Amino acid sequence: MRLTVYLAGEIHSAWREELKKKSLALRLPVDFVGPMEDHERSDSIGEEILGKQPNALAKDMTASSFNNLRTGVLIHKADLVIAFFGEQYKQWNTAMDASSAIAAGKPLIIVRPEKLHHPLKELSRKSSATVETVDQALKALSYIFE
Amino acid sequence: MRLTVYLAGEIHSAWREELKKKSLALRLPVDFVGPMEDHERSDSIGEEILGKQPNALAKDMTASSFNNLRTGVLIHKADLVIAFFGEQYKQWNTAMDASSAIAAGKPLIIVRPEKLHHPLKELSRKSSATVETVDQALKALSYIFE
Amino acid sequence: MRLTVYLAGEIHSAWREELKKKSLALRLPVDFVGPMEDHERSDSIGEEILGKQPNALAKDMTASSFNNLRTGVLIHKADLVIAFFGEQYKQWNTAMDASSAIAAGKPLIIVRPEKLHHPLKELSRKSSATVETVDQALKALSYIFE
Amino acid sequence: MRLTVYLAGEIHSAWREELKKKSLALRLPVDFVGPMEDHERSDSIGEEILGKQPNALAKDMTASSFNNLRTGVLIHKADLVIAFFGEQYKQWNTAMDASSAIAAGKPLIIVRPEKLHHPLKELSRKSSATVETVDQALKALSYIFE
Amino acid sequence: MRLTVYLAGEIHSAWREELKKKSLALRLPVDFVGPMEDHERSDSIGEEILGKQPNALAKDMTASSFNNLRTGVLIHKADLVIAFFGEQYKQWNTAMDASSAIAAGKPLIIVRPEKLHHPLKELSRKSSATVETVDQALKALSYIFE
Amino acid sequence: MRLTVYLAGEIHSAWREELKKKSLALRLPVDFVGPMEDHERSDSIGEEILGKQPNALAKDMTASSFNNLRTGVLIHKADLVIAFFGEQYKQWNTAMDASSAIAAGKPLIIVRPEKLHHPLKELSRKSSATVETVDQALKALSYIFE
Amino acid sequence: MRLTVYLAGEIHSAWREELKKKSLALRLPVDFVGPMEDHERSDSIGEEILGKQPNALAKDMTASSFNNLRTGVLIHKADLVIAFFGEQYKQWNTAMDASSAIAAGKPLIIVRPEKLHHPLKELSRKSSATVETVDQALKALSYIFE
Amino acid sequence: MRLTVYLAGEIHSAWREELKKKSLALRLPVDFVGPMEDHERSDSIGEEILGKQPNALAKDMTASSFNNLRTGVLIHKADLVIAFFGEQYKQWNTAMDASSAIAAGKPLIIVRPEKLHHPLKELSRKSSATVETVDQALKALSYIFE
Repeated sequence: MRLTVYLAGEIHSAWREELKKKSLALRLPVDFVGPMEDHERSDSIGEEILGKQPNALAKDMTASSFNNLRTGVLIHKADLVIAFFGEQYKQWNTAMDASSAIAAGKPLIIVRPEKLHHPLKELSRKSSATVETVDQALKALSYIFE
Repeated sequence: MRLTVYLAGEIHSAWREELKKKSLALRLPVDFVGPMEDHERSDSIGEEILGKQPNALAKDMTASSFNNLRTGVLIHKADLVIAFFGEQYKQWNTAMDASSAIAAGKPLIIVRPEKLHHPLKELSRKSSATVETVDQALKALSYIFE
Repeated sequence: MRLTVYLAGEIHSAWREELKKKSLALRLPVDFVGPMEDHERSDSIGEEILGKQPNALAKDMTASSFNNLRTGVLIHKADLVIAFFGEQYKQWNTAMDASSAIAAGKPLIIVRPEKLHHPLKELSRKSSATVETVDQALKALSYIFE
Repeated sequence: MRLTVYLAGEIHSAWREELKKKSLALRLPVDFVGPMEDHERSDSIGEEILGKQPNALAKDMTASSFNNLRTGVLIHKADLVIAFFGEQYKQWNTAMDASSAIAAGKPLIIVRPEKLHHPLKELSRKSSATVETVDQALKALSYIFE
Repeated sequence: MRLTVYLAGEIHSAWREELKKKSLALRLPVDFVGPMEDHERSDSIGEEILGKQPNALAKDMTASSFNNLRTGVLIHKADLVIAFFGEQYKQWNTAMDASSAIAAGKPLIIVRPEKLHHPLKELSRKSSATVETVDQALKALSYIFE
Repeated sequence: MRLTVYLAGEIHSAWREELKKKSLALRLPVDFVGPMEDHERSDSIGEEILGKQPNALAKDMTASSFNNLRTGVLIHKADLVIAFFGEQYKQWNTAMDASSAIAAGKPLIIVRPEKLHHPLKELSRKSSATVETVDQALKALSYIFE
Repeated sequence: MRLTVYLAGEIHSAWREELKKKSLALRLPVDFVGPMEDHERSDSIGEEILGKQPNALAKDMTASSFNNLRTGVLIHKADLVIAFFGEQYKQWNTAMDASSAIAAGKPLIIVRPEKLHHPLKELSRKSSATVETVDQALKALSYIFE
Repeated sequence: MRLTVYLAGEIHSAWREELKKKSLALRLPVDFVGPMEDHERSDSIGEEILGKQPNALAKDMTASSFNNLRTGVLIHKADLVIAFFGEQYKQWNTAMDASSAIAAGKPLIIVRPEKLHHPLKELSRKSSATVETVDQALKALSYIFE
């Protein structure tokens, strides 16, 4: 049994790399997918494909089309979603992806620093499990295969 | 035809009252529902029902149980969700409620200041419509009944 | 038992009025809903709510947001969809609404001139019933209440 | 990860061949499926299987049965739908397939000349992304695998 | 609490009248709906609406369109389906309606003479309950309101 | 807004009466439904309707048919399920009804003595909220209407 | 692309063998599954597993449990259902399997002699396609792969 | 065709080992999955991942999060659930897993000693089949592949 895991959330830190490396070390039978991690590219993909847009709003609208397309295909393929919330960003996309996972009946692990427990409490209560570090998320993932 | 509209989002400003009053003035056949707006009560509802909890995390966990219970019943009753994002708060609950609406096939109107268009672009692209003011949301609501 | 019927399709002819009047004459317990029939207003609703847009594409994009919002709420309320195809227009919205009805498990009656049977054959085969005139659609509707 | 992509739309131009060839050149892990492209055969498949029909309507009815059977199996297998609208035909089947994809939660890319943006605006707003050329569709498809 | 009950099955005997009369005597808060009971009309409804058809097959095809339209609307409205199988007819429509009810998660009561228990065993095992007489079906219906 | 609440669980104690009386005193706009509370009748309903059965297993099989029929109709009508677990019985029906509610997306309140928290921990984690007394359940219910 | 096809219907004639053999000759990438074809075994499987039952009704009830278990697993795996109706039997199981396929959104081909078109007209209208012979069903199946 | 079977229920006896061994001996193409069978570990997995909790309730709450995560992923992968009820434990998790399977449309085999037929009658009536021993469950499983 192989699982596909979608990694939602913050793209400015190295949490995905850390999780992938450690998962590989444990030889977990997991394929990771996720959003475009190159922030610049994720913001400009609309203009890259459709050409210069008349204003920032239209640039964003077209970029989000292709980002949602990508996310839609990949979350649908996933057996499980891990959503990482950091302290710095608004991360509404992360909340959106996490909620999509819940609504689709896909088990969800939230990773967030303890500091964020209050603003995330309702979403956290709907998740399958909430942890604070990548190592804990890895243990949770690993527990499925025991 | 009467519609039930769930008003997700910020509970610290008067946007709900404004929308309700203006909707009433237009005699729109709409019943509004929404989250607990008394912030204090929303945070303490867990301890109020279950008694003193051992720590802040447990207090939050129990509060979120009753908040999700309430939201679950009311969003299910709604024909339409209006989600308001302000500049000040993280509002992951708003993103969560908005995504739940999308996933349940319920039409969604997002209200957000133009300033927030970038961080909200993917969620906005999935909404039925995104506007900037309560008056615009009212016009959108009113358009359904014309 | 009252039924709500969504009338999809052409907004330039008087077929809706004819159907409503004849349905009323038969005292069928039916409430009719449908898309915005004022073409001008349906095209400009985006700018009316959100203000002047930078180009025709953006104007259309915003208008379609509010039209889809309206349609989404109303088709969801309907027990049955009647979709009218005339000879003159492309009417992709009609095909879209008809397909949405099929996908949502809502019975669908297609009204189309015999001339159109060939290009509509696949959609017609998926409908509950296909007729050629408003009078025939009325008979089909009336048959449900016998 | 391999994806299956259903190519809905116009069967009289070479857009499918172009897309397949360019996709192959990029070594995208994609399997393409789609409707019967031999127009003559698609129109006569009913009589070919069931024998001579009494009139054109019955011929169409039987042909559409087998075309819908084929489409039903293949769209169900697809992870993603690309729908091409050209200027010349009514293409209600394309609108029907595109709407089925949306209703089934399958990401949808619409390809249409800019000229068609007005009549397609509502369907376009419901798609994941709308582009104008096969090359742009290919970039969107390719973006999923980055 | 009022319930809507769809009465599927044989239209040549008086079982519906018996059930309705006895239900009325018990003042059960139930609204009964069901298929067209005038066999002649049910067979000719296609030609009545669309005019003379080229052959018996086409006559049946059109009649079934309107019968399925009617049944589709009414079963969707029902909270419960009661399906009656008699000894004389093939009654594939009854099996079809019963299966539709099961698939839609609607509770199903099958009424059939003991003699038919063998050919109906698989369908019966999928029903909520199987009884032999109209009086027993009435008791089952009445039990819901106790 | 009126809510229908299904009261699953133990039928040997007076918890339902207590909850109904207190809910009435608060004038909550709630209609309560639930399983047959007369244990004897619930066990013999199969024989009462279908006559003497050959053995205890068959008696149980037929009784459960009518009990599931009743429960199926009533849970489907409910907006919310409250499930009460006492210390004395196995109450697999309560667990079954609670799980059905979760699976159908209906908010669920579990009432159980603290003593039972361990064996109920997984089900409790899936509920919307878990409380220990009828008074607490009432507060949770009442919170929805504030 | 390989397809799994469930063959519902009559188990006393050789239609399945004929279809499988001809499909193999055409090298169609198809795996066929279906109900237990040994009638005797299908009737006695309940007693074979659970031991002697008290009466014919109980024997049937237990047999149908295991037959439905088998069918449930296999239809769920199928991409497509082919249902064969012969002239001799009641075949309510066939109607049940065909309706299950329709309800699950699985394309359905009905095979029936022309003689049966009248009693099967409503089910036939809901199928993807209806044919008269195994050869025609094979052509329909083969058309999907062209 | 390979099947994945989820083995719900009692973790203190050797029934899973017995079933796996006998299934292997028959070379059934089956992959078995199931809950964490090390009771101690299943109870302490929350603290193992998240660290010492303030009280027994919190310890249970966290453990159940990871157990539900595991179960959620594995039941979703299963084609079929076998649920074993023994005489000694409350086994509400077993009832919960069995109900989840039913709600998800997954065929369910219940294994229980005859002694338990009364308290399990309603759940048993909703299962695909109920048997008394592991050998009987194996025969039922094996019957699917014949």
